[in-house]
Amino acid sequence: MTELAGLQPKHFLWEVKDRIATVRLNRPDRKNPLSFDSYAELRDTFRALVYATDVDVVIFASNGGNFCSGGDVHDIIGPLVGMDMKGLLAFTRMTGDLVKAMIGCGKPIIAAVEGVCVGAGAIVAMASDLRLATPEAKCAFLFTRVGLAGCDMGACAMLPRIIGQGRAAELLYTGRVMEAHEGAAWGFWNALHAPEVLETEALKLARRLAAGPVFAHGITKTQLNQEWNMGLEQAIEAEAQAQAICMQTQDFARAYHAFVAKEKPVFEGN
Amino acid sequence: MTELAGLQPKHFLWEVKDRIATVRLNRPDRKNPLSFDSYAELRDTFRALVYATDVDVVIFASNGGNFCSGGDVHDIIGPLVGMDMKGLLAFTRMTGDLVKAMIGCGKPIIAAVEGVCVGAGAIVAMASDLRLATPEAKCAFLFTRVGLAGCDMGACAMLPRIIGQGRAAELLYTGRVMEAHEGAAWGFWNALHAPEVLETEALKLARRLAAGPVFAHGITKTQLNQEWNMGLEQAIEAEAQAQAICMQTQDFARAYHAFVAKEKPVFEGN
Amino acid sequence: MTELAGLQPKHFLWEVKDRIATVRLNRPDRKNPLSFDSYAELRDTFRALVYATDVDVVIFASNGGNFCSGGDVHDIIGPLVGMDMKGLLAFTRMTGDLVKAMIGCGKPIIAAVEGVCVGAGAIVAMASDLRLATPEAKCAFLFTRVGLAGCDMGACAMLPRIIGQGRAAELLYTGRVMEAHEGAAWGFWNALHAPEVLETEALKLARRLAAGPVFAHGITKTQLNQEWNMGLEQAIEAEAQAQAICMQTQDFARAYHAFVAKEKPVFEGN
Repeated sequence: MTELAGLQPKHFLWEVKDRIATVRLNRPDRKNPLSFDSYAELRDTFRALVYATDVDVVIFASNGGNFCSGGDVHDIIGPLVGMDMKGLLAFTRMTGDLVKAMIGCGKPIIAAVEGVCVGAGAIVAMASDLRLATPEAKCAFLFTRVGLAGCDMGACAMLPRIIGQGRAAELLYTGRVMEAHEGAAWGFWNALHAPEVLETEALKLARRLAAGPVFAHGITKTQLNQEWNMGLEQAIEAEAQAQAICMQTQDFARAYHAFVAKEKPVFEGN
Repeated sequence: MTELAGLQPKHFLWEVKDRIATVRLNRPDRKNPLSFDSYAELRDTFRALVYATDVDVVIFASNGGNFCSGGDVHDIIGPLVGMDMKGLLAFTRMTGDLVKAMIGCGKPIIAAVEGVCVGAGAIVAMASDLRLATPEAKCAFLFTRVGLAGCDMGACAMLPRIIGQGRAAELLYTGRVMEAHEGAAWGFWNALHAPEVLETEALKLARRLAAGPVFAHGITKTQLNQEWNMGLEQAIEAEAQAQAICMQTQDFARAYHAFVAKEKPVFEGN
Repeated sequence: MTELAGLQPKHFLWEVKDRIATVRLNRPDRKNPLSFDSYAELRDTFRALVYATDVDVVIFASNGGNFCSGGDVHDIIGPLVGMDMKGLLAFTRMTGDLVKAMIGCGKPIIAAVEGVCVGAGAIVAMASDLRLATPEAKCAFLFTRVGLAGCDMGACAMLPRIIGQGRAAELLYTGRVMEAHEGAAWGFWNALHAPEVLETEALKLARRLAAGPVFAHGITKTQLNQEWNMGLEQAIEAEAQAQAICMQTQDFARAYHAFVAKEKPVFEGN
């Protein structure tokens, strides 16, 4: 088990307070592109979160009015052009590993999105569990506009499940911007908030989750992904097992005793 | 084959009229919680429906202005706290078996939801095929609020397919109420109706289905679940087989002959 | 490899211009029903599209104010009544093969729907990648109204992924019309356009796709279907491989060089 409060990543900002970690990319002058280095370090950080004892919820926040402009054209796209297949696959697998690490990190991730949220940035938002944005946020799965396919880091699997197959196809084939009001109407954004309150709202939501039964939240996250392509009967059995595990936690007993005592339960995540 | 018109369940209300069965929980003073007994008896009833010769459609209705308040705190939650794993798993499997029985009963189920529809009650609504509600209905997957995970009785598998992965995640992580207007906009409720006409509308819909090709409806229900996690090509072949079966029914011939005679077909469910 | 510009199908209209093929059924006086012959010829045409060197995008358009009225009552339904199981299965498999051919054709398909779009016609729209319609378009999965099940040509698999499980269940059990404004709100239609501009808009969208990296579009289409029932981790690895392939195309290099030169990329589909 590890403590992540003291983590000092080189390629993004990191803060842990009240068991809530906040990540933000840190090249605001260029709308926060991802580099080879930040990809790798983010992947390693989300992998470490599985064993973190001092973090219950993660906020993936914006910086300087933007979320993320995707893979850096100069740092990433340039080198990829002309790279051999071994190198290309190593890169696409690393980007996919970031998504796998986010999905597998065991803690809910809240994306708080301002401004530009495109390419790999849109994927980071998509791979989060909950998504808040400002009414001006511009989200685009723009891979097609750089000559690539819409299938990047799991987009063809995840986006249809979030906004429906037809809308996902449109965004992935055209690379067009999904306006914030569309994203809210389609269920991509859980809520829209004005820029001046976006982070407060993200923090409020994070605190609510952190004050909940966080062991059980980890099981919710596990099952949402575990049941992705299970049969329905198999999923029901999987949940019978998963929920029986949660019924042996003290948090379940705490909730019951609080209810009987007409008090509010205080969860401890065990 | 069995007749269910004469069924006299001890733990809920049951009525069969015009081949439509109406179920309603019957502890209206406590907003209709589920007990160990009503869970088991509901499971057995939906299992018996597979072979019922006198029921074509089921309405799961409200009682006293509420649908269901979930597992009874005193009858169920109390005993579960401190129970050993064998007992816990026996319980969670029994609740899952109710959902499996609803899914596998071979007849369309229409939930008609007033007032409180929470916890296992929300699951019963979710596991129905069609869902009507009043504008005041409050639906919450509140497991997290009693210290548990959102994965209960298939929720992590089914809810994302109904309202989308992002909205489902929010409801399952926070346990918050889904207001009726949200549920309607998101496709959870098929329609909202004022309390005074809710049951009339549910009955109208049930009659419409009961007047249809009910053997074919059973195949529709089977395939909606059977194809849950099939590949697309496999699903298409499965439907070729399933529809070919339906093309050998008399109802198909009845529809054709009625069309040629410019009449309305009278289906008989065979 | 084949050229399809010279194709002269007997049972529908076919035109290829600027690498965009336009298909339309051609019995406008009867709202364009499908016949055994047009089913088979469409299936063969979409199969041939895989190898077509002169077509990048397909528009499935309307004719005389209607899209398609489904399987012809006299040509198809009549003969099916009384047919033996071998014949029935041969028919349902042929209809399923049309959908499989559309899904597998490797080029984006845009449905441009006016007026009646019912039965197998609704399936053709559903099996297209993008869907435009007029505000007056009437779409109905009306199989239940002819005595059949909702599971036709993949409907129980595809429709829930497009509009959600609950809405799909309603349409498939009742066979009722989905009004155009519902279809737009639910994500079935990507956009609604007035009849007088529908085809212009479809063509504009088709040109946009045809001007994009069409090899990559083919990979997007492949992956949207390939990942249909993959686990999420498997889908991410599949996309790492698929996108690495696209990174070796010239279109990817063209986009990069255009970006550096502050020009608009001109894609060539290789």
